[in-house]
Order: sequence, then C-alpha cells, then structure tokens
Amino acid sequence: MDDADRAFAIAEAASRAGGRPAERVAVLRARDGRIERVSDAVAAEEPLEIRLDGERVAVTMRTPAPGEDAELALGFLLGEGILGDAAEVARVVECGGGADGGAVDVRLRAGASPAAGWQRNFYATSSCGICGKASVDAVRVAAGTVAPGPSLEAGILLGLPERLRRAQRVFDRTGGLHAAGVFSPRGELIVMREDVGRHNAVDKAIGRAAMDDLMPLQEAVLQVSGRASFEIVQKAAMAGIPIVAAVSAPSSLAVELAADSGMTLVGFLRREGYNVYAGAERIDGLA
Amino acid sequence: MDDADRAFAIAEAASRAGGRPAERVAVLRARDGRIERVSDAVAAEEPLEIRLDGERVAVTMRTPAPGEDAELALGFLLGEGILGDAAEVARVVECGGGADGGAVDVRLRAGASPAAGWQRNFYATSSCGICGKASVDAVRVAAGTVAPGPSLEAGILLGLPERLRRAQRVFDRTGGLHAAGVFSPRGELIVMREDVGRHNAVDKAIGRAAMDDLMPLQEAVLQVSGRASFEIVQKAAMAGIPIVAAVSAPSSLAVELAADSGMTLVGFLRREGYNVYAGAERIDGLA
Repeated sequence: MDDADRAFAIAEAASRAGGRPAERVAVLRARDGRIERVSDAVAAEEPLEIRLDGERVAVTMRTPAPGEDAELALGFLLGEGILGDAAEVARVVECGGGADGGAVDVRLRAGASPAAGWQRNFYATSSCGICGKASVDAVRVAAGTVAPGPSLEAGILLGLPERLRRAQRVFDRTGGLHAAGVFSPRGELIVMREDVGRHNAVDKAIGRAAMDDLMPLQEAVLQVSGRASFEIVQKAAMAGIPIVAAVSAPSSLAVELAADSGMTLVGFLRREGYNVYAGAERIDGLA
Repeated sequence: MDDADRAFAIAEAASRAGGRPAERVAVLRARDGRIERVSDAVAAEEPLEIRLDGERVAVTMRTPAPGEDAELALGFLLGEGILGDAAEVARVVECGGGADGGAVDVRLRAGASPAAGWQRNFYATSSCGICGKASVDAVRVAAGTVAPGPSLEAGILLGLPERLRRAQRVFDRTGGLHAAGVFSPRGELIVMREDVGRHNAVDKAIGRAAMDDLMPLQEAVLQVSGRASFEIVQKAAMAGIPIVAAVSAPSSLAVELAADSGMTLVGFLRREGYNVYAGAERIDGLA
C-alpha cells in the first residue's frame, strides 16, 4: 500500500468516527450570592481502547471527537516507541462504541512489526482505573451509593480552595504540583497531599486517611486543585466521600458518576462562586 | 495482626521511605526583556511500582516524599476497588530505589484476598509510558538526540500560548480541556488538538502530523496548555520535536530528559516572560 492509499485508509476510518467533544448538563450556578439554574457544556470523557493488530495495548480516558481516535492511537503508538514509522500502518479501523466507549485497531502492513518486547513496558496506572469495563456502572456497583452524609455551608465551601492552597508546601517552591485535601464539613483540613499526578495526590490523601482508620470518609469533602475527572470522582466514591469540589471544570463522566452515585459534585469553585453539577441538596443555602 | 500492629507496620515502612518532593535546577529566567541565571526548584517526578503480595499492579509517575509511597499504594488499591478494606493489609514494604525509582509492596494478612479478577481491569495508559524501565535512559536510546533544529525568536515564543488559546474550540465552551499545538518556528500553527487528558492532546496532534507525512517534526515547536511532565517531553522526543514550551511548571524528569536529549524546554511561558530549563541556544536573544 503506498502513501496515498495509506492516507486514504486512515482518513476513511477517521470520517466514520463519531463522538462529541462536549456535552450539555444542567447546572446550579452560584455567583455573588445569587443562584440560577442553567444548561452548561462540559468536556466529554470516554474510555478508548487502543489495539495493535487486534491486540489490546492501552485503554485511555479521552475526549471523543470526529476523526481524532485514529490520530490518538497512531500518536500514542509512535510516542511510546511501539511503532517506529507511520508508514508501517496499513489501516486504522474504528471498532464500534457501546458502553465501553469504543476501540481503535491500528493494523500494520504485511512485513511490518512493532518494537520487540513492547508488552513488557506497559502496566496500568492510576489514570486508567477500571475504564476497561463499562466504567460508570462498574464503579457504581463497586462503591454503591454514598451515604446521605453532611450538609456543607456555602460559605465554608467557598473557602476550601484557599485553605487547600495555604496548606500546600511544595507548590510554593515549584508551582508544579496538584493538591488534594480531605476536609471536614466544618472546613477543617484532615489531610492534604501534593503530587505531579492529580490522581496520585488523591490516592495519597485517601491512603493516609485509611492508615489513620478514618474510612469510610462519609463525613468528608474532597477538594482538588485542578479539574474533576471521572477517576477523581471514582476514588472519592470508593472511599465513601459524599462531596467532591474542584477549582476547575468537571468532565462529562465525572458528572454522570457523581449523579448516579448520589454524590455532590462542585466545579469552578472560586472566590466569587461555583457550579453544582450533582447533589445540590448537600449545600446549605442552595437546596 | 491487630489494628495497632498494622498501623505500626505501615508507619515503619513509611519512616524508611526517602525521596525529595522538589529538586533544584539551573534556569535562565527571562522577564520583561531581562535575562538572569537562577537556581529554581521543580517538582520531583519518579516512577513507582505498586505491588500487591509481590505481584506488579501498576507503575505510576509520582512525586517522592517521605512516607507517601505507602499512602499512595494503599490509596490506589482502595480507590481502584482491588482492596476492600485497609484492615486486610498486614504490612507495606518499601522495596529499594535505583534507576527505576522504587517500588512498594502491599502485603495482605493471611486469609485476606484482593477483589477477584482485578487483573482484568488494568491496562496501560499513555500516562504510564515506559516508566517501568529506567525512564530517561530508555527514551534517550529510543529517540536518540534531536536534530539541532530551528532557532526561535523570543517574541514568537512569547506569543505561542495566546495563539494556542485562540485556536481552542471546545475549551471556550467547557473550560475543561488541555491543548497541545505543533507550531512552526515562525509561529504558524500546524495542528492543535484538545482533550481531557493532556497526554492525549499531544498524541492526537502528533498522530495528525504523522498522517499528514510531517514526521519527524524536526522544525517544530510543541506548545502545551498546562505543565510539562516527563511523558510530554518523551512524546516530543519520539517525534523529533526539538522545542517544548509549557504554560506551567516542568517536572524534574522532564528537565532531565530534555537536557539529555539535546532538546529545548521552556516553562512558565506567560506574557511577561518564561523560564528556560534546557537548550537555551535555540532561543534567539538568549544564547
């Protein structure tokens, strides 16, 4: 297959790809003391399985967009050194969607082969999670529905990012760390951890709470410095934490999991206000 | 083993853990047209292997800090539903450091067992990369040293974040997406991609460039919206990209890989200036 054919085969797969990069959700928007019910867009997040000649290489949580699954699979295989050259690719085939979010199979030309021993180099990480299964369902079954838990005064909620920020030790020196804080409903910091990986910061904080025999954290609030992905909400759900608050945006799957698990999910938590994506009844002054 | 014993065993492991959460590096600091040579702290990033009764579960890139590896391993196993209860843990053992960055083995009590079938749920993701090997060395061997490549005018460099931001489509609606842009040395956007996962955005952009037969990208600049982790620099190196610029902080391993591969790494790229962590000779007006 020559270059033109190859480009065509890839493009053909790309043109069949579906997915929307953003989804609309219902939000309670609190700003400067006023509350309104609005429809807002959140970034879509869905698992994608990357295959090489039919063999599973990786599952990643990605934003679906037309044509981009083929790009993602190809870029991933090149970036990890599994493929040395895009010219080795014969076709990129989209393999349906379904509950698992879809798959892409990168098929090599006859005679082409991936880097020897690439399988040895791949292990799971915290940002994979259980995304190989129908993610939301699996976590919902594993974690169950969280306890009704505490209510949280809006004033305390608004103060959490600053309290988390003040507790950060390494960030001040490096500007380079995500933080996760477990707080009481009265805004008292129980444990704060920092890490270059946002999931690691959450794992460390929950691991520390487990060592201190504080599990399940049914009366706690998890505050994170960045965005709220599916896996942040998943980790909170598994620890029994009923309220997750993030300084930045949530993803579509984070909103879905929080709603299905009976959790409260707050995003864009800044001095002037916040958005509630699920479980508004736990926030005093809102429900 | 009762609870007190367990807490002790975990604490014992924790107290042996080493690692520093930040490392000092030499930086060229450009602000408002002036340049100075300073020593700056960056967040440390090293691979950690998480084991369960001696079996490898995951490798994650984490920030080492005294005692936190045990927390991370325990929180990870609970958050992924592999362990149902911290009381099932007998001991957490730190297994040395070395080039691979270390490992933690979570050992269960006699009679305790992890969730059935947990192995099925774990696959590699892009944020794992080749961290199971001695990471920097492995990428250096695989990617080689990048070509001398282009020089980049400081004025064009300063404009890249705004050009990337203007190209973002979904972010404007959701506020929730990382972006990666491949630019020419003249500041022309070649391809921009967005994703909830920062590594995915880079994979997509490089995958698109490969489809368009632009590889290797020896005359290109990779601009990312967030931080520069090891894996962002790894992906750029594998694509032959000589210059990586990030709006936020780099990690220690990102700096190390860039320096060892002959790449240019710019961090904290904002309107008023930037920091150069490696390869300053490619930036006109600096070298």
